[in-house]
Amino acid sequence: MENFADRLIATIRSKNSCVVVGLDPYFKLIPDTVKQKPIISHKPSLEYAARVILEFNLQVIDLITPHVGIVKPQIAFYELYGWWGVWAYAETIKYAKHKGLIVIGDVKRGDVPSTAEAYAEAHIGEVRIDDIIETAFATDAITVNPYLGTDSLLPFIQTAKKHNKGIFVLVKTSNPLSGEFQDLMCGGRKLHEIIAQKTHEWGRDLIGKEGYSAVGAVVGATYSHEIELLREIMPSAYFLVPGYGAQGATAKDIKYCFNPDGLGAIINASRSILYAYNTSPWKEKYGVTGWKDATREAVIKMNEEIRNIL
Amino acid sequence: MENFADRLIATIRSKNSCVVVGLDPYFKLIPDTVKQKPIISHKPSLEYAARVILEFNLQVIDLITPHVGIVKPQIAFYELYGWWGVWAYAETIKYAKHKGLIVIGDVKRGDVPSTAEAYAEAHIGEVRIDDIIETAFATDAITVNPYLGTDSLLPFIQTAKKHNKGIFVLVKTSNPLSGEFQDLMCGGRKLHEIIAQKTHEWGRDLIGKEGYSAVGAVVGATYSHEIELLREIMPSAYFLVPGYGAQGATAKDIKYCFNPDGLGAIINASRSILYAYNTSPWKEKYGVTGWKDATREAVIKMNEEIRNIL
Repeated sequence: MENFADRLIATIRSKNSCVVVGLDPYFKLIPDTVKQKPIISHKPSLEYAARVILEFNLQVIDLITPHVGIVKPQIAFYELYGWWGVWAYAETIKYAKHKGLIVIGDVKRGDVPSTAEAYAEAHIGEVRIDDIIETAFATDAITVNPYLGTDSLLPFIQTAKKHNKGIFVLVKTSNPLSGEFQDLMCGGRKLHEIIAQKTHEWGRDLIGKEGYSAVGAVVGATYSHEIELLREIMPSAYFLVPGYGAQGATAKDIKYCFNPDGLGAIINASRSILYAYNTSPWKEKYGVTGWKDATREAVIKMNEEIRNIL
Repeated sequence: MENFADRLIATIRSKNSCVVVGLDPYFKLIPDTVKQKPIISHKPSLEYAARVILEFNLQVIDLITPHVGIVKPQIAFYELYGWWGVWAYAETIKYAKHKGLIVIGDVKRGDVPSTAEAYAEAHIGEVRIDDIIETAFATDAITVNPYLGTDSLLPFIQTAKKHNKGIFVLVKTSNPLSGEFQDLMCGGRKLHEIIAQKTHEWGRDLIGKEGYSAVGAVVGATYSHEIELLREIMPSAYFLVPGYGAQGATAKDIKYCFNPDGLGAIINASRSILYAYNTSPWKEKYGVTGWKDATREAVIKMNEEIRNIL
């Protein structure tokens, strides 16, 4: 298997798309036609919700696979349904891999080294049980939280290197108060710039043939003025950019996430694609019964918007 | 149900113990007698590992319940076995609750507000599915990561308030390089002191009858020189103190975690209790066949060591 960044770039080229569809299932927003499939007609329960979510994801993946090469399930929306939800998470990953997609697990894990090792093996590695080797979750990459320091991230970096997987370090997040701690000035630099510098260093040993590292960064698109500097600090990091669509960032906000080679960033949208039927102009055009058309058009439109700025 | 801090203190008093036993299952270290129980004689697989872990946890919980009132499963060691592992995590919590223990889920979650809400509902709240309400994980409290800022923690705080649950904010962790970012000087104060101040503020609205808040702090015992200042900044926060035993902190290191009232801290040990049979003096005295005696004695000894410094 190739370096994660090389695989990512190959996928981006083959689909001509750097869009990441976030698989964030909101049970209430899943169309009734999906909930009514006979195979999942249970009474309300965690199992029922998990089966509905999985069915929705499979239909979404089938819909978007011609147009995008990367999906990002957010594990929180699966944990919400207990271990049944985590079962749906694991099955979603399997199906997406089967369809040839790159899967980024948005898990934002981070812990002391011995625990981080368990997380790394769970999400981007493998686990030995007596004399067999098993895979817990078959994601290609995950997001990680750097607050605990370099030793807490090394297990993820080493596991990524060993298995040709990737990680995206939270550098600057997309939420309104992300600056509260991330923008604190520490000796002339903002905290997130220091973490960006470290992310660059953590990634040095995992650079692929295309010049990009398997250690990437989460950089919120809602703070476009900071992106240029982060691009400078981390020239070889792939940016995973959330905040497009529902969180308010637009195509011009994300322009500076890309390098002059047109590479270096993947742009995530979740709700604005999955529940496009629920927002203008698709709400009026299709409504919930036409949700598949709405989602397909939303992803095609997002592809076009981003191609136009490149 | 009472405020989480009040429930915590009532438990500490009834057991005369502020020890937290970390339920961190290392499959390799689980004694063969547990693995050989007929009910779980499967061939190696994620399911088999999860069933072994659960059986081990049930036996450990039975052993320690006379001596301690709080357990802390670390979810990473369950995710390692995929959704089957998360099933074992959920069942462990249920059994511990059934035995009257307080359960702290060591999940270190943290994300943008809409996602944090899903995490909060999953771990310390409840989820609505059509017309029913379900509980994903029945933990009393969880650990959370503050890197994303106040808005990312509000869903946890609000959910804790609504359901009389608790959270422990990562302030200063116990790993060797925890100071790399957490000790950065930001305008005359260390980052972790600023987060401590915020933790104090986040907890103001959740103070129970005993004067302690349901918003606590994770404070590594391996940095005792910093603990006094943190105790001052967060007088009403309960400290969850990892690092005792296997990570090298001793009873005298943790003295300053407590307030003059003898309350304010709970002290965690994981491997040094669960696998006491594997370390001196119990290794020589009992060996693996006597693992239950070793674990029982280790927890009694830890209780005594901590009572002695109070």
